[in-house]
Amino acid sequence: MTKNLERRLVGEGLGTALLLAAVVGSGIMAERLSGGNAALALLGNTLPTGAILAVLILIFAPLSGAHFNPAVSIAFALRRALPWSEAAAYAAAQIIGGAIGVWAAHLMFELPVWQVSQHLRSGPGQWLGEFIATFGLLLTIIGCATRASAALPYAVGLYITSAYWFTASTSFANPAVTIARSISDTFAGIDPSAAPAFIAAQIVGMSAAVGLAHWLWPSAPAAVFEKTIVGADQAGVTKRSGVRPP
Amino acid sequence: MTKNLERRLVGEGLGTALLLAAVVGSGIMAERLSGGNAALALLGNTLPTGAILAVLILIFAPLSGAHFNPAVSIAFALRRALPWSEAAAYAAAQIIGGAIGVWAAHLMFELPVWQVSQHLRSGPGQWLGEFIATFGLLLTIIGCATRASAALPYAVGLYITSAYWFTASTSFANPAVTIARSISDTFAGIDPSAAPAFIAAQIVGMSAAVGLAHWLWPSAPAAVFEKTIVGADQAGVTKRSGVRPP
Amino acid sequence: MTKNLERRLVGEGLGTALLLAAVVGSGIMAERLSGGNAALALLGNTLPTGAILAVLILIFAPLSGAHFNPAVSIAFALRRALPWSEAAAYAAAQIIGGAIGVWAAHLMFELPVWQVSQHLRSGPGQWLGEFIATFGLLLTIIGCATRASAALPYAVGLYITSAYWFTASTSFANPAVTIARSISDTFAGIDPSAAPAFIAAQIVGMSAAVGLAHWLWPSAPAAVFEKTIVGADQAGVTKRSGVRPP
Amino acid sequence: MTKNLERRLVGEGLGTALLLAAVVGSGIMAERLSGGNAALALLGNTLPTGAILAVLILIFAPLSGAHFNPAVSIAFALRRALPWSEAAAYAAAQIIGGAIGVWAAHLMFELPVWQVSQHLRSGPGQWLGEFIATFGLLLTIIGCATRASAALPYAVGLYITSAYWFTASTSFANPAVTIARSISDTFAGIDPSAAPAFIAAQIVGMSAAVGLAHWLWPSAPAAVFEKTIVGADQAGVTKRSGVRPP
Repeated sequence: MTKNLERRLVGEGLGTALLLAAVVGSGIMAERLSGGNAALALLGNTLPTGAILAVLILIFAPLSGAHFNPAVSIAFALRRALPWSEAAAYAAAQIIGGAIGVWAAHLMFELPVWQVSQHLRSGPGQWLGEFIATFGLLLTIIGCATRASAALPYAVGLYITSAYWFTASTSFANPAVTIARSISDTFAGIDPSAAPAFIAAQIVGMSAAVGLAHWLWPSAPAAVFEKTIVGADQAGVTKRSGVRPP
Repeated sequence: MTKNLERRLVGEGLGTALLLAAVVGSGIMAERLSGGNAALALLGNTLPTGAILAVLILIFAPLSGAHFNPAVSIAFALRRALPWSEAAAYAAAQIIGGAIGVWAAHLMFELPVWQVSQHLRSGPGQWLGEFIATFGLLLTIIGCATRASAALPYAVGLYITSAYWFTASTSFANPAVTIARSISDTFAGIDPSAAPAFIAAQIVGMSAAVGLAHWLWPSAPAAVFEKTIVGADQAGVTKRSGVRPP
Repeated sequence: MTKNLERRLVGEGLGTALLLAAVVGSGIMAERLSGGNAALALLGNTLPTGAILAVLILIFAPLSGAHFNPAVSIAFALRRALPWSEAAAYAAAQIIGGAIGVWAAHLMFELPVWQVSQHLRSGPGQWLGEFIATFGLLLTIIGCATRASAALPYAVGLYITSAYWFTASTSFANPAVTIARSISDTFAGIDPSAAPAFIAAQIVGMSAAVGLAHWLWPSAPAAVFEKTIVGADQAGVTKRSGVRPP
Repeated sequence: MTKNLERRLVGEGLGTALLLAAVVGSGIMAERLSGGNAALALLGNTLPTGAILAVLILIFAPLSGAHFNPAVSIAFALRRALPWSEAAAYAAAQIIGGAIGVWAAHLMFELPVWQVSQHLRSGPGQWLGEFIATFGLLLTIIGCATRASAALPYAVGLYITSAYWFTASTSFANPAVTIARSISDTFAGIDPSAAPAFIAAQIVGMSAAVGLAHWLWPSAPAAVFEKTIVGADQAGVTKRSGVRPP
């Protein structure tokens, strides 16, 4: 096991748990308070989500890279900035953390812990939405990491704040988030039967962004990428474990 | 063709496409959800637009300058920071990208792809609004580029967030955006017959800002300007292509 | 006339004009769209005001200091960072600019240019509000200028965003803004008969903040203060004109 | 008494007073204006609170550390970055300042100064909310202090903006704030009988975060921590007073 991996996995799991507690918890609060006005409910779900994302990336980026998203970890593996074995461990930590976060939200709002969403989200418009949402998210991450890494936490928070409103699917853009939201029958939920198509669209959108970024920023040194996103602690580690620049 | 121009044009086109997908997409979402309350609808259109602008400038400024706006590209050409031939190519990429973004929004929300707006926006108040909106936008860009270039992405996002509310026209401030919004019969649309006057007011506002900025900040070195706004990649290029400081 | 003063006065006047266009313009827009819900109207007035303040300070701080507020210019004079004659010229430019901004807003929204507000804002609670609002604003400016000057534009924008809601007077905190808002019979207006008490409370609040700041941060070097707030251009000028550190 | 402590205590007291004036004042304003829509009222309470927190930390962090929160001062004492005697003095200043801020808000809105809240906030869901809210707040502070200290003011403001919505208790996360809000029978109030359980949950959440942070970031040098959070002025002082790195 690579040095430091245990702490990094706790970082990914804990960060994803807090992210999901915010997504699902603010969805419950917003729906309860908004008196049936869906725009107010989405606003009360959007601002807390964008804000907590920026905070969590500020906290955890220097430790684990603050992916909180299997699509991001896979993108790093594709760019050879993270070993595939670690990307798999990251994804597992993210999925487990996401579920814990959802259950914490249910406990806080005194709802049954175990739920399954019945909120059907489907159709080509929503799948295109997930493709565009994830494509834009990865473009944001890789684009900022290359040249404006200090702005990355804010950029991701602002991106999701925007994408919640401009995509027909309200921008899940994250397989771990999609799985976690399938076990919450609240405002933010998604019926488990609708999840696989969402995740497929996310993976396609991520792949398109990784390919385009490779062409758009050919000279981006992987070392810089690793250092700013996978985290300063991690940079030395991946170098030692033989990861090469793309 | 100047070195690197192809990638820069893709950056301008893609950035403008994502901007318009956000403007039109969030307009559709906000109108659908807001239950007839126009203030909520405009809020749900404003926040995503301001947020995505900051993100897109963070991503693309080091590559293409992140103009996404023919008025901005013309201003750079007037300041001799961009060759006129490249400004023309930029404008074409922005207009094409804008149309693609609108169509992507229509597809996401499962609306007919091809639409023509019937939303009349006209009259001296709105034209003055477009003059002021574009004047302020260019003042923001040139003012920040000169002395606070790291803040530019946030400044532009915040400026548009504000201008959506304080101008009677809700601040198009961009000929490519005006053209793109004329082919969407949704919340953000503008009847094509109203577009020429909007664009004329924008060009006059831009010209006034360029002239005033020349007097306000006479010592601003064009080299700094190029480096921070046209992008680090581009600085060497324009120097080689014989562009002189104003 | 001190070197550069002409451009600095244009900066103060233009910045205050844009600030008032945003305050009054967004107030008109917000009231028109909010369907009678006062919280939505205030929100649609708050966000554009806070956002434009940050932008205008980013643009004009390196030129004129971006005061846009006679209370701020007087505070600088009290701290011997600005000659009293220049503070007076600044105040005149701010008052003239503010009026122009209000008239521009009226023109944009096709209202009569010349108006007098009938919106009575009075009573000890509102006066205490103006005292606290201006006290906090000056504490923000002096506190940030001393140690976190790059954050100042955002700090002032965020401060006003907050103070619009937590003071009973909705935080005018600025004599030029108070005068300008007295000539607009719209959402943001204030009856001229109520203005003198507001301005008096603002001056008292400013004085209290200047006194307290002198005790709280005794070692703050005036040179740093001048450089970051009065503007880099100005620092050399005031030194030559014999302004001494407090 | 350690050098400089007097000014630092005034900083803590004044900052906490302004924080509570914002929390309680914006709560009153938001409830009055929102026409019975609870989501709008919470939004009008959230944005001013998050914004003023960022501002107050920008202003006071270099002086006193800008804790405004006994849980934060105790955490610093546990990490041996603040002597226990000073932590106690900080807590006293925060509690006194908080009460003054609440009374200022009552005076501004012309309400009786002395009030006792009758707003019962209780139950395991709310206590878990306070545990999670304070745990996340301390993780934000310690995580950012270690590696991204310039972002700390924004991170704390964004964190509270989010936590107001995702915790069932609307995130008090602060014993001084809890006590202060118990003496205001307005939107933000809490019945005094409910306060002890809130405070207990906050202390447990704080302790959990301090323990976890010790394991997550073992190499974080206390010196850096002191310098960025307790304030540059304070760093020399605590060194002289014999505080050792944890």
